[in-house]
Amino acid sequence: MSDAPNPTEKRSLAQRLLDGDKRALARAITLVENDDPAGWELVREVYPHTGRAAIVGLTGAPGAGKSTLISALTKLRREQDRQVAVLSIDPSSPFTKGALLGDRIRLTEHFLDPGVFIRSMANRGALGGLSEAALQGALLMDAAGKQDVLLETVGVGQAEIDVIDHADTVVLVLMPGSGDSIQALKAGVMEIPDIIVVNKADHPMTDTMVREIRSVLSLAPESGWRVPIVKTEAAFGKGVDELLEQLDAHRSYIEEEGTLSERRTRNLRNEVLAICTARMRRALEERLAADERFQAMLDEVVARKLDPATAATRVLAELDAPDARA
Amino acid sequence: MSDAPNPTEKRSLAQRLLDGDKRALARAITLVENDDPAGWELVREVYPHTGRAAIVGLTGAPGAGKSTLISALTKLRREQDRQVAVLSIDPSSPFTKGALLGDRIRLTEHFLDPGVFIRSMANRGALGGLSEAALQGALLMDAAGKQDVLLETVGVGQAEIDVIDHADTVVLVLMPGSGDSIQALKAGVMEIPDIIVVNKADHPMTDTMVREIRSVLSLAPESGWRVPIVKTEAAFGKGVDELLEQLDAHRSYIEEEGTLSERRTRNLRNEVLAICTARMRRALEERLAADERFQAMLDEVVARKLDPATAATRVLAELDAPDARA
Repeated sequence: MSDAPNPTEKRSLAQRLLDGDKRALARAITLVENDDPAGWELVREVYPHTGRAAIVGLTGAPGAGKSTLISALTKLRREQDRQVAVLSIDPSSPFTKGALLGDRIRLTEHFLDPGVFIRSMANRGALGGLSEAALQGALLMDAAGKQDVLLETVGVGQAEIDVIDHADTVVLVLMPGSGDSIQALKAGVMEIPDIIVVNKADHPMTDTMVREIRSVLSLAPESGWRVPIVKTEAAFGKGVDELLEQLDAHRSYIEEEGTLSERRTRNLRNEVLAICTARMRRALEERLAADERFQAMLDEVVARKLDPATAATRVLAELDAPDARA
Repeated sequence: MSDAPNPTEKRSLAQRLLDGDKRALARAITLVENDDPAGWELVREVYPHTGRAAIVGLTGAPGAGKSTLISALTKLRREQDRQVAVLSIDPSSPFTKGALLGDRIRLTEHFLDPGVFIRSMANRGALGGLSEAALQGALLMDAAGKQDVLLETVGVGQAEIDVIDHADTVVLVLMPGSGDSIQALKAGVMEIPDIIVVNKADHPMTDTMVREIRSVLSLAPESGWRVPIVKTEAAFGKGVDELLEQLDAHRSYIEEEGTLSERRTRNLRNEVLAICTARMRRALEERLAADERFQAMLDEVVARKLDPATAATRVLAELDAPDARA
C-alpha cells in the first residue's frame, strides 16, 4: 500500500491553494502544464471555488506592448487592493527558445509583490493541449483568490483564439504603423474584440489608425456593446486608467446583460469537446504508433495507391470494430 | 434501382478531370468543398494520378501583396508554357463576408486563359475542415494536370500553418514597415519558410527589413538550404523572375536531398490523423447534440459542480462502453 497516493498531502495542496499560497499555486500549475493526473484532480477539487475572477484576455502581435500594458494594469489593480494573476502564453520557437524572455522583464517590478502571481506557459504543440492547460491554469488562479486573471497571447491564429476564448473580456492591442493586425481584423481572420487598445500612441500614425479601426468596426453588426478604442502609452502609464474604466464598464455590461453567463456556457461546452477531441487524437496516435498495418497503410498513401481520406475511413472502421482485427 | 449512383457519369467526371477539363475541375472542387461524399470518392479515384505538381504555399498578412505576386508568377509560368492553378484560402468573416474579393480582381487577367485555374475556398470553421478541403482541392488540381499549384493563405495562425503544410515549398510574403509578421517569425510563432519575399520593395524601409530578417534567420539552426530573401515589386513585375529562379532552385534541392519525399510522408501522415480527428469530433458532436444527459452534465459544469476535464472523462467512458448506457 506504500505506493498509494497520500490523500493528506493532496488535500493540503488544494487547501493551501484555496488559501492563496503562491507556492501551492505555482506547483499546481506545473502539475497541469506537465499533464500530470494529480493536476487534473486538483482542478477537479478546487473547481467549485472558481468562477469569481474577471478573466481578461489580451491579444495582438508581438511588439505591440502587451507585457508593458499588463504591467501598468497590474499596478493600478494593486492600488485598488485587488489580487492579480498574469498567465502568458509563450509560443515555443523551433529555433529561438526564450526569445520572449525579454518581455517578462517588464513584469519584474511585480515579482516580489505577494498579491501578484506571474506565470508563463509554453506552446507544446499538442492539439488543443495549450488551450486546455491555459484554462486549467486560469481556473487554479481563480480558485487561489486572484480577482483579475490576465491571459496574454501572441498572434491572431486559431490556437490563440482558442486560448482567448476562455476570457470574459477580450482586449486587442495594436500599435500604430503596424498594419497586419488591423488587416486581419478587416479580413475577418479574427473576431471583433470587446476593447481595442492603440498602444505607443505617441506615434504620428495613431489617429490614422484609430480612424481605420473605426471604419472596420462600422462594418460589424450592431450589438449592445460599443467597442471602445483606448489610446495608451503603457511605458509611461498614460491612458491605462481609461483602459481600466473600460474593462470595468465591459464587466458590468456582460454581467447585467447575461452575456457573461452565455459566454461561459458556450466556452465550457467547447472546452469539454476540445478535451474529448484532444484525448481521442492522443489515444489514436498511441494506438497507431505501434500498429504495423497502419505503417503499411501510410506507405500506400505515400505511394499514391491509397488516398488519405480512404485511409482515415479504414482506420476509424477498425477502431469501431476492433474484433475485426483478429 | 433508379436511386443508385450512375457509375458512368461519375467515371466521366473523373475522366474529364484527368483530361484537364476546367469545368470538371471546378465541379469536383465544389463537391469537396461541400463535403459531398461524391467529392471524396472522386479524389480516391484520381489520387494515383497525383504527386506530380509543384505545390507552393504563399503566406503572410493581408495587404502584403500575395495576390499581385501570384498574378505575376502565373504570368511567368504561362510564358514557360506551364499549367497553373491557384487555390486561395479566404478566411470567412463574421461580419465582412467577401472582404477579400478585391484581391481576386488582381487575378482577372488570367480568368480567360484555359491554362490557368483560379479558385477560392472559404474557412468554414470546422475543426481541420478547411485544411482537409484545401488538400483535396490541391490534389484535384494536381490530377487535372496543373504543374504549379499555388496555395494562398492569410495570417500566421495554426489553421493557416495546417494548410501551408500541404506545400512542398513555403514562401512568406512580407512588406516593409509592417512589423507583425517578422515579429511572429522572431517569436517563433511561425516556422522558418523556404523563401522570404519582401514585396513593395520601393518602400524606404526595405533594406532595414531585409537586415532584420537576416538577423532572425541567423538564429535558425543550420540546414542545407539557405533561405533566400527576394525583393519584389509585384505590381510592376519587378523581381518576380528571381523569385521564380529561387522556387525552381528550392524544388531541385528538395528533390535531390530527398526532403520532398520526407516532407510529403510526414504531411500525409498528419493529414490522415487530422481527417480521423475531425471525423471523430463531428461524430461526437452529433451524438451529444441529442443527448439529454450531456446537456445535464454541461449544466453541472456551468454551475461549477463538475469540472470540464472530469466531464470529458465521463463522455469518453460512455463512448467506450456504450452498453453501460442501457
